[in-house]
Amino acid sequence: MAAFDQAIALTSIGENLYGGATSAAYANMVGPFGGVTAATVLNAVLQHPALLGEPVALTVNFAAALASGPFTVEARPVRTNRSTQHWVMEISQADENGQASTVLTATAVTAARRETWSVDEEPMPEVARPDSVARPNMAAMVEWVKRYDIRILEGQIPVVWDGAGHSSRTTLWVRDEPERPLDFASLTALADVFFPRVWLRRATAVPAGTVSMTVYFHADAAQLGSHGTDWLLGQARAQALRNGFFDQTALLWSAGGRLLATSHQIVYFKA
Amino acid sequence: MAAFDQAIALTSIGENLYGGATSAAYANMVGPFGGVTAATVLNAVLQHPALLGEPVALTVNFAAALASGPFTVEARPVRTNRSTQHWVMEISQADENGQASTVLTATAVTAARRETWSVDEEPMPEVARPDSVARPNMAAMVEWVKRYDIRILEGQIPVVWDGAGHSSRTTLWVRDEPERPLDFASLTALADVFFPRVWLRRATAVPAGTVSMTVYFHADAAQLGSHGTDWLLGQARAQALRNGFFDQTALLWSAGGRLLATSHQIVYFKA
Repeated sequence: MAAFDQAIALTSIGENLYGGATSAAYANMVGPFGGVTAATVLNAVLQHPALLGEPVALTVNFAAALASGPFTVEARPVRTNRSTQHWVMEISQADENGQASTVLTATAVTAARRETWSVDEEPMPEVARPDSVARPNMAAMVEWVKRYDIRILEGQIPVVWDGAGHSSRTTLWVRDEPERPLDFASLTALADVFFPRVWLRRATAVPAGTVSMTVYFHADAAQLGSHGTDWLLGQARAQALRNGFFDQTALLWSAGGRLLATSHQIVYFKA
Repeated sequence: MAAFDQAIALTSIGENLYGGATSAAYANMVGPFGGVTAATVLNAVLQHPALLGEPVALTVNFAAALASGPFTVEARPVRTNRSTQHWVMEISQADENGQASTVLTATAVTAARRETWSVDEEPMPEVARPDSVARPNMAAMVEWVKRYDIRILEGQIPVVWDGAGHSSRTTLWVRDEPERPLDFASLTALADVFFPRVWLRRATAVPAGTVSMTVYFHADAAQLGSHGTDWLLGQARAQALRNGFFDQTALLWSAGGRLLATSHQIVYFKA
């Protein structure tokens, strides 16, 4: 089983309840990589016996850092319509007193999608192919970064932290390492691979952590299936950085230029 | 009391529970204007006695159309940290059998914000002043539209539905009508004033309804307070329209060019 599949693996432990555990392979500075936690909570919906359709929207709120070890995911279908279904999820962990404590809240919408008139409004930028772009030296970075092959085209992590940043935009190629066929869970995690926009815009390394993240899935399972293990092009930028929080808006295209997902987050940063 | 304040008014009816009612002044095609429903659920958080800080993020999932009449809002603070607080909300209504039924799910993050290094990355476009832009003729539109003074600069509702659309972007001035001082609740509703992007991009009127909506608040209460009843500039566009759903990404600036909020939604549309 690939490291990613191990990290998001869940065992049914009751009605609407699943048991999981943090994975050292996706460790971040504090707790696990948020993208994998988001993928794990979506995974509870994906393997729920009452699931209708496929994910359309996912919002995950990171209430506290997950401690290393086991956790419980609750996923409840609170409303099932003819073609859409609404989910409320939560991750809880025992705190230092052994009390169950909420570390993450989430909601999702799934839907049975039909083919309709369709158009992508946001064209993929014309960029160099991944094979022609060197891998950034991220050997000293946190563990989860090693689970991705990332080729940064624009907006590298600053080499000199001199406060002279001028743009918050990063454009990069990315795929799982080792290669793994794309699905809803891995696409969710990929939407969170961008380093904090404030580092780039400010050329200053300050503590930062995602507070809330939303993913809109434009691709269905068939489109993700035909993507296979190919590269994705990702682009992320901030729109406002103010008083301890900045937003990030991100786009993820297939190598062929199909917009697979759009994603947004609001991120805490320290002065 | 202004129509908006009446529409979002809630009465405490128990721990974490509030009673409200739909307002004819904000009626939409089916059920009330989603922006006002989103503002109402945020209002439960804002008047909750345990509230820490001010809204940073709000996500609202529209599970079913609200029926005309009373509803119950639940707002639970599920985790309170030193400077952030996580909320889970729900609106329920009695269904035809008298059973409480979930019609909306939501989450919010509030935070005690401190002044930090700040910058707006998304500059306000240079546009004509609202006084020089005619009001669109929306007399035949739904009731809630009359609660806003809207001046469309770019991307009008199509006059001819000939399928010849080419862009999904609308830029407009907007404020409450009658004028009302801006606050978190009214800003939430204002983030939802844009008509469905698919109408514009396709120049075809098809049924459409927001499924999930997220608002990130970049302004704090002091910044909203100093805005008063001035105009906001809003810009919205779709990034992908595919197989029954499209996204909308929106920006809301003060007339002085300060980015007050960014907002995103995923919207169902019929083929």
